[in-house]
Amino acid sequence: VNTNGNRRVGVWVIGARGSIGAAAAASHWLIERGGTPMTGLVTESLPFRGVDLLQWNGLLFGGCDVVDTPLIDKIRAHIDEGILPRSFPVDAKVLRAIDSRITNLAGAGGGSATPAMTALAAVRQAIRSFREDNGLERVIVVNCSSTLAQSAEERSISKSPSWPRMLARLPRLRSIPWGIVYAAAALEEQCAFINFTPNSGTDLPALADLARRQGMPHAGRDGKTGETLVKSVLAPLFSARAMHVLAWQGYNMLGNGDGHALSDPGARALKIKSKDQQLRAILGQNGDLHTQVSIDYVPSLGDWKTAWDFIHFEGFLGVRMAMQFTWQGCDTVLATPLILDLVRLVELAWRRGESGELRHLCSFFKSPIGCEEHDFRKQLDHLYNHLGAPHSSTM
Amino acid sequence: VNTNGNRRVGVWVIGARGSIGAAAAASHWLIERGGTPMTGLVTESLPFRGVDLLQWNGLLFGGCDVVDTPLIDKIRAHIDEGILPRSFPVDAKVLRAIDSRITNLAGAGGGSATPAMTALAAVRQAIRSFREDNGLERVIVVNCSSTLAQSAEERSISKSPSWPRMLARLPRLRSIPWGIVYAAAALEEQCAFINFTPNSGTDLPALADLARRQGMPHAGRDGKTGETLVKSVLAPLFSARAMHVLAWQGYNMLGNGDGHALSDPGARALKIKSKDQQLRAILGQNGDLHTQVSIDYVPSLGDWKTAWDFIHFEGFLGVRMAMQFTWQGCDTVLATPLILDLVRLVELAWRRGESGELRHLCSFFKSPIGCEEHDFRKQLDHLYNHLGAPHSSTM
Amino acid sequence: VNTNGNRRVGVWVIGARGSIGAAAAASHWLIERGGTPMTGLVTESLPFRGVDLLQWNGLLFGGCDVVDTPLIDKIRAHIDEGILPRSFPVDAKVLRAIDSRITNLAGAGGGSATPAMTALAAVRQAIRSFREDNGLERVIVVNCSSTLAQSAEERSISKSPSWPRMLARLPRLRSIPWGIVYAAAALEEQCAFINFTPNSGTDLPALADLARRQGMPHAGRDGKTGETLVKSVLAPLFSARAMHVLAWQGYNMLGNGDGHALSDPGARALKIKSKDQQLRAILGQNGDLHTQVSIDYVPSLGDWKTAWDFIHFEGFLGVRMAMQFTWQGCDTVLATPLILDLVRLVELAWRRGESGELRHLCSFFKSPIGCEEHDFRKQLDHLYNHLGAPHSSTM
Amino acid sequence: VNTNGNRRVGVWVIGARGSIGAAAAASHWLIERGGTPMTGLVTESLPFRGVDLLQWNGLLFGGCDVVDTPLIDKIRAHIDEGILPRSFPVDAKVLRAIDSRITNLAGAGGGSATPAMTALAAVRQAIRSFREDNGLERVIVVNCSSTLAQSAEERSISKSPSWPRMLARLPRLRSIPWGIVYAAAALEEQCAFINFTPNSGTDLPALADLARRQGMPHAGRDGKTGETLVKSVLAPLFSARAMHVLAWQGYNMLGNGDGHALSDPGARALKIKSKDQQLRAILGQNGDLHTQVSIDYVPSLGDWKTAWDFIHFEGFLGVRMAMQFTWQGCDTVLATPLILDLVRLVELAWRRGESGELRHLCSFFKSPIGCEEHDFRKQLDHLYNHLGAPHSSTM
Repeated sequence: VNTNGNRRVGVWVIGARGSIGAAAAASHWLIERGGTPMTGLVTESLPFRGVDLLQWNGLLFGGCDVVDTPLIDKIRAHIDEGILPRSFPVDAKVLRAIDSRITNLAGAGGGSATPAMTALAAVRQAIRSFREDNGLERVIVVNCSSTLAQSAEERSISKSPSWPRMLARLPRLRSIPWGIVYAAAALEEQCAFINFTPNSGTDLPALADLARRQGMPHAGRDGKTGETLVKSVLAPLFSARAMHVLAWQGYNMLGNGDGHALSDPGARALKIKSKDQQLRAILGQNGDLHTQVSIDYVPSLGDWKTAWDFIHFEGFLGVRMAMQFTWQGCDTVLATPLILDLVRLVELAWRRGESGELRHLCSFFKSPIGCEEHDFRKQLDHLYNHLGAPHSSTM
Repeated sequence: VNTNGNRRVGVWVIGARGSIGAAAAASHWLIERGGTPMTGLVTESLPFRGVDLLQWNGLLFGGCDVVDTPLIDKIRAHIDEGILPRSFPVDAKVLRAIDSRITNLAGAGGGSATPAMTALAAVRQAIRSFREDNGLERVIVVNCSSTLAQSAEERSISKSPSWPRMLARLPRLRSIPWGIVYAAAALEEQCAFINFTPNSGTDLPALADLARRQGMPHAGRDGKTGETLVKSVLAPLFSARAMHVLAWQGYNMLGNGDGHALSDPGARALKIKSKDQQLRAILGQNGDLHTQVSIDYVPSLGDWKTAWDFIHFEGFLGVRMAMQFTWQGCDTVLATPLILDLVRLVELAWRRGESGELRHLCSFFKSPIGCEEHDFRKQLDHLYNHLGAPHSSTM
Repeated sequence: VNTNGNRRVGVWVIGARGSIGAAAAASHWLIERGGTPMTGLVTESLPFRGVDLLQWNGLLFGGCDVVDTPLIDKIRAHIDEGILPRSFPVDAKVLRAIDSRITNLAGAGGGSATPAMTALAAVRQAIRSFREDNGLERVIVVNCSSTLAQSAEERSISKSPSWPRMLARLPRLRSIPWGIVYAAAALEEQCAFINFTPNSGTDLPALADLARRQGMPHAGRDGKTGETLVKSVLAPLFSARAMHVLAWQGYNMLGNGDGHALSDPGARALKIKSKDQQLRAILGQNGDLHTQVSIDYVPSLGDWKTAWDFIHFEGFLGVRMAMQFTWQGCDTVLATPLILDLVRLVELAWRRGESGELRHLCSFFKSPIGCEEHDFRKQLDHLYNHLGAPHSSTM
Repeated sequence: VNTNGNRRVGVWVIGARGSIGAAAAASHWLIERGGTPMTGLVTESLPFRGVDLLQWNGLLFGGCDVVDTPLIDKIRAHIDEGILPRSFPVDAKVLRAIDSRITNLAGAGGGSATPAMTALAAVRQAIRSFREDNGLERVIVVNCSSTLAQSAEERSISKSPSWPRMLARLPRLRSIPWGIVYAAAALEEQCAFINFTPNSGTDLPALADLARRQGMPHAGRDGKTGETLVKSVLAPLFSARAMHVLAWQGYNMLGNGDGHALSDPGARALKIKSKDQQLRAILGQNGDLHTQVSIDYVPSLGDWKTAWDFIHFEGFLGVRMAMQFTWQGCDTVLATPLILDLVRLVELAWRRGESGELRHLCSFFKSPIGCEEHDFRKQLDHLYNHLGAPHSSTM
């Protein structure tokens, strides 16, 4: 018997009115209500039968954002764009209830002499209110905000070797390093932290240090949902067959808010770096692999990301061959169930007393913290082994 | 120290003058001579370091065919078509030596009252001569012949539950069931048998029975080289992420001898079946998966097979997405190193006293004998585990 | 001043409850009401400014079908499948009015000793009623029914050199050759005829003869909407640059009613023939062009046809290159505006006193009647020249 | 009777040792010798029968370069890379003869106080010597050099409204504006000029002015060989069917010298501009067309350019559809015959007394000088009409 039915675990989403945040909260309610197929939910698939995961009704969604758009507008737009199916039930009362749990942080830190410290305090306060107002035992903070370019002072502070050292430098910053502030606020408030964005989050020495001090579990970085996911199963094929990859070029188009954010060259550089490193890790090739990733903003595509990859490789005796693929996926549809899965898996780890970087969740991320493994199948093995899930083949 | 340097193991290739047969024998000589990169050779890659595989100079190539084209002509044609690199050294003396070890079996069984029995005797005699003339300790027979349509009487005799029952029925056949005859001749002559073709070979109760009686190892069926290989890494991705595949359509074009053979609807049906079964096995979906494989003969492509696959799938909440890929590979370039790898791996198994179906070689085949596993990564795990090869990730 | 505002021209659609028939009638009403963009309507584009085309409110839709599904159900299904936009206004009253003008012909000819004659009489009667009941001056009959396989007796009767000879043989047929019956009924009733299907329609000597006798204009055969359309602009490129096409392979997938009908090998053969002939005509190559067209039924795609084409060609000094394209279009969305365009263009021709095969409409069809031209741009030149439409470039 | 058999027309290629320059000179000799198929040569195709074009033996090749690599090395490399067929006859004597007619201009202008003037004089001298040494009646100069970034001072001087004004400013430049110098030298020496590069060449007011003063014909700019060529036949399709293109994205990869030159952002900008303008011109859409062209340098592809284009478009009632294509062509193989065609067509125009910009050659160029027409078929109509070539269809 699963004994966790009565627990109330909060999910505090940063970017709760964004594309993924809105879809996650609304679809969680639909799943909890029952009757919807579990397609796309990893934790509802065969290998997780028998794992003591939290039931869906144990979760409560809230969060923060910098806009005030009511969730009902976002959900209706999602239905119009085919991100949610036409049959998706829009329940105004349910959505208003979630709305009431989302804090607007647009003004946090503004005009202050020490903006970073003011912002940190504001985020901490918002999390605390969410927990107290809703009588929650535990809160998991999930960063689903846009990709942000790093300022020079953020890059500099990121090198701080410990949390005290970083904290000492924060008051002197002129701008707010949001990626750091969100993670720090969560950890200081004794919350687990999931970083679904390419922003550094807990993937910094000082924040890893803070997580250790607080005994909190954390996971990240940058959800692996589409083109990169495909690469992480295809690249091992070339390696296993001893073929030599000459060039792997990826061209990505997207038209959603994330795409717009990536129009900023700084943000794009961060994203591309996140997508790029895995190939070298999997292929084990050094200087002779030529690989480039391009991202273009194409408004008409909206959330329907389209990516084209070209792989040029050498086989036996150096003969050259090629493969290409086109991926046409909806980013929000691919990301949303992973948020729900990650919340359950982090909750389980926390309940089991695990803390620090949850390396067994590496299959969910483009840049898994604390893990050099990028081969998707080996990443899955880590997950299944960690959970004691059955995954052996029938042979 | 590897102690097998002096052994002489024969490789008797059925279809020795064919595209793969010719490339295998000629490139084996090039590898033995040294100085060529090992790209494409699985047994030369990292996980096989330390495995006691036969050295390349332990092998001697021969075989049979139904044509007399000198190998030098085939090799030159391969170079002209880009199947072998322009720098490939054509050594007339070496090729003539291999030529002299290839028996022409065109007339075997012709005009005879019991053609199957006559053919069986002819093949056995040819193998025996190869072994005796060259003072070989062991011979591995590799079927690299064309895909053949099955006659009704071949389909009928294939159901024989044991070798004695099949043998009793063979004299009554009007035509020669070559796929059976080759495998039976090899096993009767105490040879190991590798079936790289879609023909049934040892994947029949009666021949499995014969292999058991003779204590011989065998492996097969239908080399996994291109589109099917890609499918066997991509399909598990959809399964692992709990996505529902609605349709997976494959369209293949090829222009080589194999393509010409597949113009025959019977042969094509056999090939398509071999390519088709894996998806259902990997995805674990039943009636609701729509999948079709088409093969067209396009002469101008020659050995450069081009395949296009389209995958239509449902993600979270039933939203539909798509992926497509184009594979442009050279069949002979992809297949040839696998022949060399399989010979070494079968030799090792035989030397270690293993017999019967070598299930750990399943990653090499589209329809692995005695193995329901089609997920390439899990197939590789079987191989690495069996050999005690290191393959764990760095985490 | 356009003087045709008061005329009432009927459009009698065969397959009026089918995918295209329903969309054409409903969207005609939307266009007539005004306020919708004219995207996709050729006759509303720049080259047709100043051409004396019938205004949209001059048309009245009716037709026949063999099912009774109310149009409102079909329109709602279209909206659900994304064939009509979510914003499409569903006006029950308007749709019921069209419903009332659609005759169910399911029973026509059934059980009769001379089924073809009984069916012919029934269709004629239905057209007559449509004209008289609605006080129409003229009726244009448009065949939008499914592709049908030809029976042996239909193939035989199709060779009749004149209408009297064909008519004399009709009573002896056991089955109803619907493609012939529809065209004959329209012409006998002094209606113009448009054949949007691959069925023969007026593309037979006897029906061309009947059209001449009746002085009626007709156009057809098989609407050119997607992959074939693209081929008819791409193929001339290779020809103009003196490149030699070695192979042009087309693989089509569709999941709509048409796709289901094409599961019948006879129907598919007709369709493939219609798609196939153009390449040889445009490229002017003879025996050395290898071209195949495949069509597979993939239910999940619905009306969203997906086609992949591969073109293998030789350039200067015989060097080989390749091009491939993927077309992802919605058949109904592509076909519906062409129906509306064709009705207006046939009405104009009729009003101008033109009769017989309307060759200047060849750009709309895969197998244009009476016209060997398949190059889309040259086909457009015929159209523009015929209408006196301006189309010269700015040079 | 063609009366031009005895004339000697010189072809002076800038970049004569480059990929296209070397292939053009060597293949001209092969064609002159006879026996090779005329695939890829536009002027040898059907519409040009009866046009009084110069015979191949009327041409003599020479030119200039900045390197000394013997042609025989370049031709052998071309054969190794599959740019020229393996059967291409390498005649050392013939190639050495061409070598002797290629001037090395590496040092021209170097160290001089007025480098541009010194370079201009050096190029003029080299052309003069070529004409005089070989007793040529006329010389056609063809620019096949690499794409160069424009310096600020080159951009500034490019605005000069007349040749005297530009000439007056040339001595003050610090660097050599090669694109201008080559064109000016050719025109001053009474040579016709063909600009196959994206560099400005005669597409400037001052050089058009010079051409007028000298009465010389000229043509250009940027040979249309691959992806852009395909776009110029596909885009008119969307326009003719009144479809609305939302986005047209092009991703190009190439690995040859041109690709390396395009690693320079300035050079790439010039190339992309040249590729970009045509879509707006053909589609007649204004602000609402989203189009981007990317170019990446992928060394392993060499001369085998691979481009992927994605077209997102709206059809009837605003329903969105998509098309994508992959072009895999060899740049040199595509460009070389066009050089030979252009030389013949410019020679004919010159012989007929035509001068100034040869607008009827617009189909050969991405940015045709003096012509707003980008629709390939309409461009061909200009060519055929100008030459009086038969091109009407059979209708």
